[in-house]
Amino acid sequence: MTKRLLNYAKDAWVAGAGAAVPVVSAISGETVAVVGSDGLDFAGMLEHARTVGGPALRAMNFHERGGMLKALAQAIMNRKEELYELSAQTGATRNDGWIDIEGGAGTFFTMASKARRELPADVVIVDGEHEVLGKTGSFIGQHVYTSLQGCAVQINAFNFPVWGMLEKLGPALLAGMPAIVKPATATAQVAEQAVRIMIEAGVLPKGALQLVVGSLGDTLDHLTCQDVVSFTGSAATAIKLQSHPVMARESVRFVAERDSINACVLGPDATPDAPEFDLFVKEVVREMTVKAGQKCTAIRRAFVPRALMDAAQQALAARLSKVVVGDPAQDGVTMGALVSLSQRADVRDAARALAGECTLAWGSIDTVEAKGDADRGAFQSPLLFRNDQPWQAQHVHDVEAFGPVCTLMPYADVEDAIALCNRGKGSLALSVFTYQPETVRAFVLGSGALHGRMVFVDRDSAKESTGHGSPLPMLIHGGPGRAGGGEEMGGVRGVKHYMQRSALQAHPRMIGHVIGQWLPGVPQPSGEAHPFRKRFGELDLGYTLHTAARTITLADVEHFAEFTGDNFYAHMDEVAAAASPIFGGRVAHGYLILSFAAGLFVDPAPGPVLANFGLEHLRFIKPVKPGDSIKVALTAKAKSLRTADMGEVRWAVAVTNQDDELVAAYDLLTMNAV
Amino acid sequence: MTKRLLNYAKDAWVAGAGAAVPVVSAISGETVAVVGSDGLDFAGMLEHARTVGGPALRAMNFHERGGMLKALAQAIMNRKEELYELSAQTGATRNDGWIDIEGGAGTFFTMASKARRELPADVVIVDGEHEVLGKTGSFIGQHVYTSLQGCAVQINAFNFPVWGMLEKLGPALLAGMPAIVKPATATAQVAEQAVRIMIEAGVLPKGALQLVVGSLGDTLDHLTCQDVVSFTGSAATAIKLQSHPVMARESVRFVAERDSINACVLGPDATPDAPEFDLFVKEVVREMTVKAGQKCTAIRRAFVPRALMDAAQQALAARLSKVVVGDPAQDGVTMGALVSLSQRADVRDAARALAGECTLAWGSIDTVEAKGDADRGAFQSPLLFRNDQPWQAQHVHDVEAFGPVCTLMPYADVEDAIALCNRGKGSLALSVFTYQPETVRAFVLGSGALHGRMVFVDRDSAKESTGHGSPLPMLIHGGPGRAGGGEEMGGVRGVKHYMQRSALQAHPRMIGHVIGQWLPGVPQPSGEAHPFRKRFGELDLGYTLHTAARTITLADVEHFAEFTGDNFYAHMDEVAAAASPIFGGRVAHGYLILSFAAGLFVDPAPGPVLANFGLEHLRFIKPVKPGDSIKVALTAKAKSLRTADMGEVRWAVAVTNQDDELVAAYDLLTMNAV
Repeated sequence: MTKRLLNYAKDAWVAGAGAAVPVVSAISGETVAVVGSDGLDFAGMLEHARTVGGPALRAMNFHERGGMLKALAQAIMNRKEELYELSAQTGATRNDGWIDIEGGAGTFFTMASKARRELPADVVIVDGEHEVLGKTGSFIGQHVYTSLQGCAVQINAFNFPVWGMLEKLGPALLAGMPAIVKPATATAQVAEQAVRIMIEAGVLPKGALQLVVGSLGDTLDHLTCQDVVSFTGSAATAIKLQSHPVMARESVRFVAERDSINACVLGPDATPDAPEFDLFVKEVVREMTVKAGQKCTAIRRAFVPRALMDAAQQALAARLSKVVVGDPAQDGVTMGALVSLSQRADVRDAARALAGECTLAWGSIDTVEAKGDADRGAFQSPLLFRNDQPWQAQHVHDVEAFGPVCTLMPYADVEDAIALCNRGKGSLALSVFTYQPETVRAFVLGSGALHGRMVFVDRDSAKESTGHGSPLPMLIHGGPGRAGGGEEMGGVRGVKHYMQRSALQAHPRMIGHVIGQWLPGVPQPSGEAHPFRKRFGELDLGYTLHTAARTITLADVEHFAEFTGDNFYAHMDEVAAAASPIFGGRVAHGYLILSFAAGLFVDPAPGPVLANFGLEHLRFIKPVKPGDSIKVALTAKAKSLRTADMGEVRWAVAVTNQDDELVAAYDLLTMNAV
Repeated sequence: MTKRLLNYAKDAWVAGAGAAVPVVSAISGETVAVVGSDGLDFAGMLEHARTVGGPALRAMNFHERGGMLKALAQAIMNRKEELYELSAQTGATRNDGWIDIEGGAGTFFTMASKARRELPADVVIVDGEHEVLGKTGSFIGQHVYTSLQGCAVQINAFNFPVWGMLEKLGPALLAGMPAIVKPATATAQVAEQAVRIMIEAGVLPKGALQLVVGSLGDTLDHLTCQDVVSFTGSAATAIKLQSHPVMARESVRFVAERDSINACVLGPDATPDAPEFDLFVKEVVREMTVKAGQKCTAIRRAFVPRALMDAAQQALAARLSKVVVGDPAQDGVTMGALVSLSQRADVRDAARALAGECTLAWGSIDTVEAKGDADRGAFQSPLLFRNDQPWQAQHVHDVEAFGPVCTLMPYADVEDAIALCNRGKGSLALSVFTYQPETVRAFVLGSGALHGRMVFVDRDSAKESTGHGSPLPMLIHGGPGRAGGGEEMGGVRGVKHYMQRSALQAHPRMIGHVIGQWLPGVPQPSGEAHPFRKRFGELDLGYTLHTAARTITLADVEHFAEFTGDNFYAHMDEVAAAASPIFGGRVAHGYLILSFAAGLFVDPAPGPVLANFGLEHLRFIKPVKPGDSIKVALTAKAKSLRTADMGEVRWAVAVTNQDDELVAAYDLLTMNAV
């Protein structure tokens, strides 16, 4: 009996009722599994996510959620061979599977590390600096992000069943939001196993993750403004989802990543003997053949200077002639199958549309030489089209042949190339092979508004370039217009898509309590103990040391100059310093003020303060003249646990003079024992 | 003959053809003007914006666009009385008009100042730090924002014809995007005059601003992903606009600010003798009566601890009894008219719905005592409803009576209050009157996801509080769910809504050229001249000084300790320092390294470097031990013109030891003569 893939609903594995839809091997054409979700209580699953999963995730802080992602990624890596095995059924080569499986786990690893380094051990993200809204600073504004209280409904594409799921799931879980994931049927066996591995890892709270193999039923009808729908797939389906009445009525957040006619440009400076020419040729062929061209980010349009059309065509054809299509299990195969025969039929339809306005420069639309069962496997020859009049052409800019298909076209100059790229009406990725910085800036200004990611490759960066087609977890993925207008990942940016930004207005005492910071205007209690005697856990925010004063003499300034070698005229030349509108006479060195301030506040004996490892936002506000005296207020401003043993303490340092005027202010960073 | 308001299309004032719609005085009921836009070439207006206005605005940098906003605001202030006069026709008191007219100009002033202080003298906004994507740093990622290349279509509400237009227009113009504005007919005479004042100021480039008084015709049919539709008004109209097929098909950005059932909560700690009780009462009445309650942010639901229902009702009624409704031109009037009789009919319908489940605690739905022509003026009595079973009620949480209407309700505890606030299904503004920081944090965590702005008022902040109902240009305005899910303003945040974020990937030389910064990995040429000898304009980014080395002796460390008073054990106690896992022996003071570094790189004579005014991102990376020698590489990293005479230079400072290991790194900030 064929294996029935299971749904994971309300923390249980359940089979769908009723008719099942087959999942077919891309290589053999055999049915390898069936899916179905009839009979699921979709409204109940949403409610389960909202009432069980959400509260549990929100009770964890960002670091704990990051730790959870890391454990999930580790579980996937430990059992990755199970996934590679299923992945092979989808037509993927080992390399294609690596991108999907290990790339997916890597995405979780990166997000986990971002959470630890860039997010607090708390549940609120602080957005920007506070704004003082009144004269005395008793009422301030502060933007923060808090977790949405609904469910993320994530509808994924067939091409990367693991990566495509994890790149959406990671940010949602990090944001404290549970998810219902719905993989594409064509590769649902891989996604289902990946979910099983994650559930069996035992680190997800109940209700945090649910899986629907098959239709989502009436899920959409029950959405509210606290839910997020995130979709990857065709424009037609995206438009259908986005137009569901619930979306506008409830202001449901909708993120789409859909069709994209990505372009690649050979720069105007790149002659055939330039390294950028070869790099361009390799990249175009790589993008055509990796995952048999079934990538939303793959290059569909390749633009070269008009004079180089023949040279480029020749070089591309030469490289394409080395591609070996077939069953990845067979030796020497470099490009696998499309996901299914029906997908191949779609690709061939699209290719025929292109053939109507282009010449076919390499490959065959309807026949293929393949190592494998060419009748039952969804093999496809790479297809390189050529069109010499791109402004007259239509389909090349509009039709996404979701396979190993690309069209070579000429451009006149940089402006023309930019306009041609923009004719794609919005894409996920644009790449330009050039050694000229001014060409790069021209493309960013001219094309940035239409492309979510822009990759510029040259001889100096090629070795480390991650390539045209690879979204990275630390960079945003998504694009305007035809590409759906969505945005995913981008490190912490992606997490915010599952959170709400709100403006808070209150007394700094209130804002400080919300964001875990001492803020100006909040009381600064002192005590018997020097703050450097307090361990990380004992130190209350706001706790302040007021030091004694120290008078700075002209002899100090002269001695400091002599000792350090800093003889800047403002310190040493009375006439020149008096002529300066800023100083109006000799002043103490800024570094002298810093050094004396440390002398005033440092408590010398060994203790919980392990080191002063840095300093931020130092401003010298008012000159200190010989005869002035300075004193310091050192206030515990923020704390952030870094390891089990150590935490970072940020101190607000205010140096004032004998008239209580601020002369310097900065944040001091120390590492303290817990 | 009645005045016909004009459209401003393709840089010309034109009357609409065909039938005209009347604009009626709120006070006298007389028709004061007519509007109509039949016959306008809407597609041509969009094209004019895109091909003439956009390129002209994008040729200006942020500082220049900010200067333009400032000049527009100044023009409005110079001619404000023309606007006050028209504003009075709309039922507004002088105070209502002040919020609209001077508040609108103030919004432009704030945005202009933000542009100068927070945005570069360039056209690209840098988003976050760059990400190193390879081992050697030859390929990096950087997010940037660039201007959209389309047109902002801004559809405004009747209540604030000036402010409501400017709060949307300012961010668009700052972003380099032209706009077509469409005011609500009921107050179009005020908006039309404000546009006239701005056009006549002579600072807007051609095509930057167009005006439609009347219907937008087929404008929406011609939108692309480079356009933005921004709407303020009813949920019904918002849903209609958002559901237009062009929106999903072209992924047009849509920003809505629509219905909002805002809540105000008296904290659980606020007894009738607490200052927060009085503040709450004043705020609720103020929000009911300012602009006759016709504010998207006005308080519609007032929640108090159950035990305080009677006390709160009594206090609110006492205060409401002092409100004088009428023609603002008459003495003593404190609340003006609704905008029209038809608006009053809508408010009364909504009030009758509320009356079905509430008791009327103050006022009269259908009769009003008003100083003015009570038959022809759209006067309305304030209405305070009371409902003691808010979990049983429906309309109070769903019906927005857009006038001086509010319902008083009880809550059981903080959790209950949060859940009741959230029953509004998303709002623009929530306020809480409490003196307890833990109550504030509970509301932020429990309600943040449903509210765009949250205001917390207490005895310490009340004096400077800007109030529940006032959106501020530096804070975001908008809210999730029922409120439309949009976001506007928020300082630079609002500008980004009219720009596209893209991820760039390239060699740091390329990224640096785009964002105007020297980045690590880019060549650092040296020259004969010390960099401090170069004026702002002469200094090339990347220009580097490599200093001589200086050996740091134990005597230096001991002398520095004695001189500054900083005797921290890591510098002075061999045994304790050796025991530290961080130091492993005595080390030089961080401030000694900083001071000696300055001694190495400072060029003493007067010159273009006016002052070292600050320092950023200092990190001490590796300890410096006695006997080590240090040297400095000082590299011009970024420049930013501040005034006509002075510019800020940011220097990357790298301090290395005798083994070329980095021991300290920071950004040094100097002010340089142009």
